[in-house]
Amino acid sequence: MKSDIDALMKKRGLDAIFVTGGEGQNMLRHYMTNGAHISGGYVIQKYGAKPMLIINPMEAEEAKKSGYAIRNYKELGAYSPYYLPPQEQIEFWATCLREAGIDFGRIGVYGQGEIETYIELVQLANTHFEQYQFVGETGLTLFEEAFITKDAAEIETLKRVAVHTNEAMAAAWDFIASHKADASETVVKADGSPLTIGDVKRLVRVELLKRDLQDTGMIFAQGRDAGFPHSHGEDAMPLKLGQPIVFDLFPHEIGGGYYHDMTRTWCIGYAPPEVQQTYDEVMQAFDISLEMFGVGKPLYVMQEAVQDFFESKGHATSRSNPKTMEGYVHGLGHGLGLNIHERPSISHILRDDVWQAGNVVTIEPGLYYPDKGIGMRIEDMFIVSETGELISYTPFKKDLVLPLNGA
Amino acid sequence: MKSDIDALMKKRGLDAIFVTGGEGQNMLRHYMTNGAHISGGYVIQKYGAKPMLIINPMEAEEAKKSGYAIRNYKELGAYSPYYLPPQEQIEFWATCLREAGIDFGRIGVYGQGEIETYIELVQLANTHFEQYQFVGETGLTLFEEAFITKDAAEIETLKRVAVHTNEAMAAAWDFIASHKADASETVVKADGSPLTIGDVKRLVRVELLKRDLQDTGMIFAQGRDAGFPHSHGEDAMPLKLGQPIVFDLFPHEIGGGYYHDMTRTWCIGYAPPEVQQTYDEVMQAFDISLEMFGVGKPLYVMQEAVQDFFESKGHATSRSNPKTMEGYVHGLGHGLGLNIHERPSISHILRDDVWQAGNVVTIEPGLYYPDKGIGMRIEDMFIVSETGELISYTPFKKDLVLPLNGA
Repeated sequence: MKSDIDALMKKRGLDAIFVTGGEGQNMLRHYMTNGAHISGGYVIQKYGAKPMLIINPMEAEEAKKSGYAIRNYKELGAYSPYYLPPQEQIEFWATCLREAGIDFGRIGVYGQGEIETYIELVQLANTHFEQYQFVGETGLTLFEEAFITKDAAEIETLKRVAVHTNEAMAAAWDFIASHKADASETVVKADGSPLTIGDVKRLVRVELLKRDLQDTGMIFAQGRDAGFPHSHGEDAMPLKLGQPIVFDLFPHEIGGGYYHDMTRTWCIGYAPPEVQQTYDEVMQAFDISLEMFGVGKPLYVMQEAVQDFFESKGHATSRSNPKTMEGYVHGLGHGLGLNIHERPSISHILRDDVWQAGNVVTIEPGLYYPDKGIGMRIEDMFIVSETGELISYTPFKKDLVLPLNGA
Repeated sequence: MKSDIDALMKKRGLDAIFVTGGEGQNMLRHYMTNGAHISGGYVIQKYGAKPMLIINPMEAEEAKKSGYAIRNYKELGAYSPYYLPPQEQIEFWATCLREAGIDFGRIGVYGQGEIETYIELVQLANTHFEQYQFVGETGLTLFEEAFITKDAAEIETLKRVAVHTNEAMAAAWDFIASHKADASETVVKADGSPLTIGDVKRLVRVELLKRDLQDTGMIFAQGRDAGFPHSHGEDAMPLKLGQPIVFDLFPHEIGGGYYHDMTRTWCIGYAPPEVQQTYDEVMQAFDISLEMFGVGKPLYVMQEAVQDFFESKGHATSRSNPKTMEGYVHGLGHGLGLNIHERPSISHILRDDVWQAGNVVTIEPGLYYPDKGIGMRIEDMFIVSETGELISYTPFKKDLVLPLNGA
């Protein structure tokens, strides 16, 4: 968590971190500014000190929300550092570092931005400055490691986003249920025109907005489309009875912030026997997952237990056949926070992560048979409590069949 | 524009470009895949050839929308390249390059992603491979140069987004106008409770969604807040009569895509004389801008004409006083497309850009006096037509006073 950053710097031999990035709000700026909406500039943290923000003067009011020391470009002699030629831009970095009390040392450069630019600027800076060494990082980076556990303020936000996301999904269920079907098993509106995936997505986006959340690309995929885990669904497609629909909803706070991530699979009106049976297996896998939990245990054993189970039922998995496009083809879950996907991962490939208090993860087994028009996934978000319990914050019901009650 | 990419590669001595980036949809992937919603992987374009997409197999259906050749991770022997240790990750880059017919050469690396990771990976790759040289770019990059002009398909999209954004702003005007004021000059709802900035923003977000657009952080700032060009406004603040409100709306297509960007300044009920006078000067500056347009002319002369005018009226500008926080404190405009800010720029600092057909830019003079509770800006989006005319696609009226007609 954020309070670990000094320790994480020490572990990496860093005297400071320099957080930069492209224009626009981004996740690392959000994290390092306590959610102030800064759309440019730098955050510098010297080992053992509080962060300092270097900002566009136009963002002075917003930056104050961070609670940290602030310097603006103009005070430090630049109109906008992004406009400066490379040599002057790295000189401005040095000005900022000195302002934050860093006269020499090993500086970790972090951020989301234009790769092409930073490759060159860092190389130039390392050639130019004797007193500074700028370094990147591969593998589990400082921030990826910090994100593995969330602090109390983050947990509170994640719980609030969870409540609101579940409400939006419930609104979608109720909205669909208020319709009826015609003789061709198409779900129709009062005027007889088909209810489409686009109609549902528009309703959900508005329900999210009412709760100050923003859709980031929900999946609402029916039939064959549901069989591809990341197919988003076609807006024009009418909803049909008896076809599995994968509804994966992962909004974040408006303007950028914390995520929720949940998936339900629905069959409108009725479920054909093969769909019901496949669904029952996914639900069994979900329950098996929870049995494998324990603080201190590695996460990958949970994925392997689910793979064992699915393989025992005759399904291919990405372990039994790494090239398979059918069966159980993805990881069991992932951390989430300011990123939709972060560590820890419940994967048979990444085997280092171990359960600890403050983890926030999804658990999401699924089965995919696009050629049969079948795809399904169930996903809750869990928080590992201070007392070491794995608690779901995705209470919305897991019914497969969504009955229509429209007159 | 996109069809220039080969020429732009040649100019930079590149044999290929390798577009990568972090997880999630990003602007370069959108551009290089013709809007397919790919949330990972690479786009490789060899000089003289069409792009090839390297994708997560789960995104196969979505990737097809690009119309380009596709290879998935599993076909090329990886579960996910992002999970690989650095050495294996760059070996996978080489596998992908060979797959795209690139056995050697100078490769431009582009994308939006984790700076820390790419600094290290590119360095490693350049040490490891004799046959490839990976390079970044500073200054006006290949894509920044490509974005300076838009092709017909992009212009069509930008026009559609413009129409819908103007409609959403009109809805906000009508919504506010339907209210009344109380004795304290507060705008109130039917039940007497104050109408707040948050109420207006929620209405606008829904109006945008109805039109398949997404807010990316609109500014609706009143009084002193309006005096800071990038202050977003406080949700809880009630709307008041006679205070200038800067309403800057810059949504993009849902899920990422093309932007519109427009600003209006409103005074509800009435405008105090000083506000009206300042507004008139901003409108004069707007008209002066348009007179300075001409294909082949540099853009900076437009900014300088506006600075000349504002200075003649006694306002500080960032030319007359680079540290000023009052007066005219920003550039006159910027290109936009898949980025909210791109080249060309109407700035006295960047002096290289020259008007040409296919430019899409904002023009947005403003004046800011936070201590007087005054801030204002007027912004339209313009397209330079094939016949060399500067045409506004922001038709919404530029009235300062927004009269209330609530009963």
